[in-house]
Amino acid sequence: MHKVDLNADLGESFGNYTIGNDDEIIPLISSANVACGFHASDPSVMIKTVEMIKKSGTTGLGAHPGFPDMMGFGRRFMDMTMEEVRAIMLYQLGALEGIAKTYGVELNHVKPHGALYNATFDDYELSLAIANAVKEYDPKLKLMGLSNQNLIKAGSEVGLEVRHEVFADRAYENDGTLVSRRKEGAMVTDTDQAVKRVVKMIKENKVESIDGNMIDIQADSICVHGDGEKALDFIKEIRNAFEENDIKIETM
Amino acid sequence: MHKVDLNADLGESFGNYTIGNDDEIIPLISSANVACGFHASDPSVMIKTVEMIKKSGTTGLGAHPGFPDMMGFGRRFMDMTMEEVRAIMLYQLGALEGIAKTYGVELNHVKPHGALYNATFDDYELSLAIANAVKEYDPKLKLMGLSNQNLIKAGSEVGLEVRHEVFADRAYENDGTLVSRRKEGAMVTDTDQAVKRVVKMIKENKVESIDGNMIDIQADSICVHGDGEKALDFIKEIRNAFEENDIKIETM
Amino acid sequence: MHKVDLNADLGESFGNYTIGNDDEIIPLISSANVACGFHASDPSVMIKTVEMIKKSGTTGLGAHPGFPDMMGFGRRFMDMTMEEVRAIMLYQLGALEGIAKTYGVELNHVKPHGALYNATFDDYELSLAIANAVKEYDPKLKLMGLSNQNLIKAGSEVGLEVRHEVFADRAYENDGTLVSRRKEGAMVTDTDQAVKRVVKMIKENKVESIDGNMIDIQADSICVHGDGEKALDFIKEIRNAFEENDIKIETM
Amino acid sequence: MHKVDLNADLGESFGNYTIGNDDEIIPLISSANVACGFHASDPSVMIKTVEMIKKSGTTGLGAHPGFPDMMGFGRRFMDMTMEEVRAIMLYQLGALEGIAKTYGVELNHVKPHGALYNATFDDYELSLAIANAVKEYDPKLKLMGLSNQNLIKAGSEVGLEVRHEVFADRAYENDGTLVSRRKEGAMVTDTDQAVKRVVKMIKENKVESIDGNMIDIQADSICVHGDGEKALDFIKEIRNAFEENDIKIETM
Repeated sequence: MHKVDLNADLGESFGNYTIGNDDEIIPLISSANVACGFHASDPSVMIKTVEMIKKSGTTGLGAHPGFPDMMGFGRRFMDMTMEEVRAIMLYQLGALEGIAKTYGVELNHVKPHGALYNATFDDYELSLAIANAVKEYDPKLKLMGLSNQNLIKAGSEVGLEVRHEVFADRAYENDGTLVSRRKEGAMVTDTDQAVKRVVKMIKENKVESIDGNMIDIQADSICVHGDGEKALDFIKEIRNAFEENDIKIETM
Repeated sequence: MHKVDLNADLGESFGNYTIGNDDEIIPLISSANVACGFHASDPSVMIKTVEMIKKSGTTGLGAHPGFPDMMGFGRRFMDMTMEEVRAIMLYQLGALEGIAKTYGVELNHVKPHGALYNATFDDYELSLAIANAVKEYDPKLKLMGLSNQNLIKAGSEVGLEVRHEVFADRAYENDGTLVSRRKEGAMVTDTDQAVKRVVKMIKENKVESIDGNMIDIQADSICVHGDGEKALDFIKEIRNAFEENDIKIETM
Repeated sequence: MHKVDLNADLGESFGNYTIGNDDEIIPLISSANVACGFHASDPSVMIKTVEMIKKSGTTGLGAHPGFPDMMGFGRRFMDMTMEEVRAIMLYQLGALEGIAKTYGVELNHVKPHGALYNATFDDYELSLAIANAVKEYDPKLKLMGLSNQNLIKAGSEVGLEVRHEVFADRAYENDGTLVSRRKEGAMVTDTDQAVKRVVKMIKENKVESIDGNMIDIQADSICVHGDGEKALDFIKEIRNAFEENDIKIETM
Repeated sequence: MHKVDLNADLGESFGNYTIGNDDEIIPLISSANVACGFHASDPSVMIKTVEMIKKSGTTGLGAHPGFPDMMGFGRRFMDMTMEEVRAIMLYQLGALEGIAKTYGVELNHVKPHGALYNATFDDYELSLAIANAVKEYDPKLKLMGLSNQNLIKAGSEVGLEVRHEVFADRAYENDGTLVSRRKEGAMVTDTDQAVKRVVKMIKENKVESIDGNMIDIQADSICVHGDGEKALDFIKEIRNAFEENDIKIETM
């Protein structure tokens, strides 16, 4: 029997702006990556999100720190120094954990958001800065990063527990990085195909790249969307497929 | 022999903007109220400030949370709900403590900043919201508030240790609140007079109000400025006066 | 035959956050109050909104400046000086008009947003500061404010053309101000009743207050919602009622 | 006799944070590049800056738009789309001109700030996006950019009047771009040498690169610092040198 973590980026509402069906999705996943007020969210939204996670009882809480760019939702790379990256990591981890500990919820993992996550693909120095910040903050935290890529390597190098993440709806390059959203074929839009790919990644540690090559991949945690009309349906489908395939969902 | 705490608002630089001589002032005070990124400061500034406090070895670290208004430096009242006030308190406390714990520095006290502090003078519900947020976050934190006023009362009511704060350079109304800066005579501009008033507050628990009445006051902690040309000189003068008067400066 | 303006607050999306069905609503109204980037919106959203207004061909463009509080959507009063209010007015008017003129769209009116609008109800000095800022910026702009209240009075005093605004779904106090949303009965939730009230306001210049008194009101412009599931339906219903009652919708 | 423009980045204070001696510097330069509220400044600061420029009577007003990154002072590259760059240009130009026209001051030129300026050095598409935004906004505006480099080329291509800018205190690469501040020798710290280089650039259209080569340069406008202790002294020295060399300072 296989075990896998199911994660989603959540708590990304902001002020009067609502994104996602967090209350419905949280009970169906095993790890929530919660925005920390820089690329999305605000203190009130973070509180509501932590309350929902606490209520779920089973979903692990992760910090989802991003670049300080609310207007760009943290999706625009910002050329920060490694010192600045460290600083925004520590700040956001503390802010979320401050709220979490008030509710008696433990912080379990860290997954950088958007451009901060993507920028690690070809920047090992940045990956190390992120990994070191997490370790300095709390060496018991797990670091989630793209399967077999820089964040995972950096996390391992500094001695953190790492979680190899795979994406259900994204195409992969031959080197295991994600195909840029600007390229055609970047998204796996067919639900059945997406589910099948995920199952194969979990059971066989393989995925077909955009060029048709079968590449190695490790699937500790599957990333699903927390917003969009189809998010909830997709999660239900993937959960059904896991049941049929004897794959157990479990916070890692 | 009397003991008193000497506090200053610090760590209020922001990005390319520098305020204050924090490195010179921190070793001369016993409590630093450190901005948390909402009315002033940013993650990098907070780190530098915590590093200076750690280096000082003796100065207590306090959180100085404010309204989310960088443009107004937290000096403009914002009509937030009590839930929102609680949320911005928890967020800012966590953000600062996240950085502090990374450096092995303990958070000792909390003092609201600017309009958030001033608004408590005639709003007990707000004072309670602040006190409760601090207690929920960490009941061992001390709450600093204007001597004998609402924050102190609310802190005591919820069971927090409280610190009565007095201001060296501000005039007092008969009811013990501060004279608004918009009124003439709000500031005690003469250094000698300011020092004498402080010594009297500490030794006799009395201060003369702007109307010439002698009113009761409790001086656990003296607030001095952390920025401005004369800040450093004033702190040195007040320290001299304390020495002459057998008043010992000590983090409370 | 009666003529009336139909206005809605629009262009309130922000970055990755979408609010409202602006493209569907703009062709059905005659005046759009467009957020200027302080309480909502961003430069890209403002461009898209101006493009939609230009495409509509008939809808008047209004600036909808608010307090600089994205997290609170401009709904939290901020205690700014009159100088500061003037400054944020000029800035936001210029920002929107800069985009509008690039598209050859003229700025027609100004309506303050949220707490900036509501705060004028009992603050004539603030009303004057707003009116004067609009006049200084461009004396040909019309100022929209709550019917018969301070903004209208201040606008008239400084020599601006004014537009008396009424709300289709809000209850009125005896003095003509809006019943606070925190009070029961603040909202007129029944669509039929809301439409009937509006028609009566336009044809008879009367509305029933929350206490059951018939009070005077002038209805130059009707405010309808730009977001929410029922917004579009309500606008269609009110348009039907206007047709049946020989009320022509026209930008004023 | 030679003519040259003397420009400085100004109006970069923010809220409670003060940078620069703008009131002393503005009368000594001929073009002021005024921050527009994204990387620095706020509406109140912009008003004060425009008032000072108006009072000077002779200094030309320029917009100095930057990336939306107050914490990084616009010095961190942000990976925005060309559409987003256009949007933030139009917004900032409008915001500044809205204030300027209220004071009867005309907008004369545009110079991008910090990372937005530097990013054009090797990104012609970005240079074109900036130039086109300026042209769309107002084709009479002059575009200031690094001498002989992309912004100048893009401005010329779209039909704008351009202003070749040179830096008094920066070293040049052989290709005419600025030596990165991260490299040794990036700054010309000796005042005499800096002044001599500038005079040579103006009179001979030549400057010595960091590698010792004499390269071509066109000096329409000299950039001097608006903040720092030595800023004012340097401006006075350069003005003296200009007088001795029959170089007339004039807004272009």
